[in-house]
Amino acid sequence: MIPVEIIRKKRDGYKLSKEEISYFINGYVNGEVADYQASAWCMAVFFRGMEKDEILSLVEVVGRSGDVLDLNDFSEPKLDKHSTGGVGDKVSLVLVPLMASCGFLFPKMSGRGLGHSGGTIDKIESIPGFRTALSLDEFKDVLKKVGAVIAGQTANLAPADKKLYALRDVTATVESIPLIVSSILGKKIASGTDVWVFDVKVGKGAFMKEMDSARELARLLVSISKEMGKKAAALITDMNQPLGRKVGNSLEVEEAIETLRGEGPPDLTKVVLSLGARLSSLAGSPISEEDLIKKLLDGSALEKFREIVEAQGGNPEVIDNTNLLEHAPYKFVLEAEKDGVISSLDAERIGMAVVMLGGGRKRKEDEIDRGVGVVLLKKEGDSVEKGEPLAEIFYRSRESLEEALRLVKMAYEIDSFYKKRSLIYEELV
Amino acid sequence: MIPVEIIRKKRDGYKLSKEEISYFINGYVNGEVADYQASAWCMAVFFRGMEKDEILSLVEVVGRSGDVLDLNDFSEPKLDKHSTGGVGDKVSLVLVPLMASCGFLFPKMSGRGLGHSGGTIDKIESIPGFRTALSLDEFKDVLKKVGAVIAGQTANLAPADKKLYALRDVTATVESIPLIVSSILGKKIASGTDVWVFDVKVGKGAFMKEMDSARELARLLVSISKEMGKKAAALITDMNQPLGRKVGNSLEVEEAIETLRGEGPPDLTKVVLSLGARLSSLAGSPISEEDLIKKLLDGSALEKFREIVEAQGGNPEVIDNTNLLEHAPYKFVLEAEKDGVISSLDAERIGMAVVMLGGGRKRKEDEIDRGVGVVLLKKEGDSVEKGEPLAEIFYRSRESLEEALRLVKMAYEIDSFYKKRSLIYEELV
Repeated sequence: MIPVEIIRKKRDGYKLSKEEISYFINGYVNGEVADYQASAWCMAVFFRGMEKDEILSLVEVVGRSGDVLDLNDFSEPKLDKHSTGGVGDKVSLVLVPLMASCGFLFPKMSGRGLGHSGGTIDKIESIPGFRTALSLDEFKDVLKKVGAVIAGQTANLAPADKKLYALRDVTATVESIPLIVSSILGKKIASGTDVWVFDVKVGKGAFMKEMDSARELARLLVSISKEMGKKAAALITDMNQPLGRKVGNSLEVEEAIETLRGEGPPDLTKVVLSLGARLSSLAGSPISEEDLIKKLLDGSALEKFREIVEAQGGNPEVIDNTNLLEHAPYKFVLEAEKDGVISSLDAERIGMAVVMLGGGRKRKEDEIDRGVGVVLLKKEGDSVEKGEPLAEIFYRSRESLEEALRLVKMAYEIDSFYKKRSLIYEELV
Repeated sequence: MIPVEIIRKKRDGYKLSKEEISYFINGYVNGEVADYQASAWCMAVFFRGMEKDEILSLVEVVGRSGDVLDLNDFSEPKLDKHSTGGVGDKVSLVLVPLMASCGFLFPKMSGRGLGHSGGTIDKIESIPGFRTALSLDEFKDVLKKVGAVIAGQTANLAPADKKLYALRDVTATVESIPLIVSSILGKKIASGTDVWVFDVKVGKGAFMKEMDSARELARLLVSISKEMGKKAAALITDMNQPLGRKVGNSLEVEEAIETLRGEGPPDLTKVVLSLGARLSSLAGSPISEEDLIKKLLDGSALEKFREIVEAQGGNPEVIDNTNLLEHAPYKFVLEAEKDGVISSLDAERIGMAVVMLGGGRKRKEDEIDRGVGVVLLKKEGDSVEKGEPLAEIFYRSRESLEEALRLVKMAYEIDSFYKKRSLIYEELV
């Protein structure tokens, strides 16, 4: 096979065979296909799209391009969850211990944040001592002992995805549904899990700004997962405003702990319960949202979280005393400039404000400050009076505050009316 | 400016500014823009196209990316001609001396062949001693002395085009009208000439297989040339069957000499005369085709050719004795397998047959055999009887003959009827 002919075929709108996709992607990983050929191919896929069976082939090739985690020692269903990324999205930190407290196995492999959306690994590392870089044996040991584990990538999983993603990022080929699907599902295949729920975010702070594309992505994620013999469902949830009230690494762990205690913000709690109920029924042991709440209120979910923290070397005292988490030294309180109702609270701007404070990454290699962040005292639909506090900004340097403050101010819109939005738009099973 | 944003802008169908195009192309030449970004951009241009003023900007940026030949010592109009490439196309070898014999300046810079289409430089080098690698001073000296010169590229002209073309070749982004136009006109700008005629070939043996795309290319070439203050016109000519009867380097020089003597095949002669008449009127001193024929019949065009050969170190005796050109040792005569009329003679297959004989290049770095080739005794519309010779194949090795013979056989179609085609489809001024 000749790389340029495969590019041409896709460019001209023809369907690629499994052999062609396999040759091209594996060739890219081993250097036989040049990066300038891979980027031209990605752009052709951007314009021409892919049929379902092409995407299926691509997912399998990407998923099996490196190691595939072998969790066959565990015969029970292994839960997994993927969010397309948002602001204030600390769902995994609550969902993983909650489901494990119900007896499910939840081997969660997560990523770091980039741009305005945060990453679970960055957040949980706010707990002093918590180790996310586990060997495969450690990963399995924690899973066996606790029923759950939260770690960064442990092996050479889906190297094709890493290489392709880095390339797409600098060649304007990120926004292609077949490539997005292959990236998400390729990593899932490699993770060795088998019951998957996707939280597809839509809105200002999400990767998908429009409902149509979110729905297309959700449908493909579910149908291709099923074709691969996995149990799968997707929720399309709102990401116009941030989820919960706290944004920033330590702050989000704090809010996750509150939620595990049954005292979390209603939107975050609702998303966790919906995903959890869906996961339980996919796994064949349905638990209602009402029964899941009980696990929050009776302390068993929080207890499971404590076990995870202990098993991974973290200081479990943070659970009772969140002052042990890293905190920024200064706080600024933003006040409302007029009376009214919060008609809009732009998640992307809040996310970027946290990046400006040092709590996120502009580039992959950036170091992050886990202590900074924003607490949203008012969210969409809340009434405010002039002078009333809108948000607290936790910062370390004056310069970073200025830029962040500008963004937080711009994020809030105060008007005379507010049009209520759904939190969960659709569920696809 | 950020390269990925320029790719995204084009990908999303927006118009690029002159500054953006300049930044991106010059950045590609100097390494600031990576090749994987340039290829993704080319693919986006393939799908989105470019508006006329974008193409104009691209042409100027490509044309001025390196040296620009300074021919300002010559105040008279400087003619140039570009063919989009075909089989048996030895027009330049006739047109250049013909126009110079009428007193026009014709500083012709030509390329080598690749794939099924030949190149003027490869052909003229069949003349023993003929030097095509001239320094800029030598180039100007010959032009001053003879009024014409036929050389390969003398300086670092349009390096952006060289880099882009090599990239497009391996990323399936060759077939994009804006990129084709910028490649052709970029080189023309750098060549320092100012009266341009384009021979846009259309048909089986041409780069443009369809009339619509040939017309679009011809229109753009002419209108953008004019916007740059050049005199320009284009002819759309047939390349379903080869031009003339001889294909292969030495053979084509032989046929060019016959044509310069007024004894050439009618199709080749007609294309030369049409292009010449058009060039003369663009240059402000119109000469009719009838008057141009006189220059062929009275020997003055041939005499000018002799002067060029002498000035560039070639052996002028070849003009009177073409046996001095390199010739392959063996000849095979292909005979008709049935009675009928030649309904089709596929130029691409004849071109590939010559490549198989060793007379063309599969890859840029290939050496070529100037002695081999094919003489087409019968062309479209000719009647044949079974057993009558169709073509002569001049070859060096038995293996190469076999492959070439298969292609030449496939190129000929003998039927009971023939639908006449035009030679010159359209002229755009």
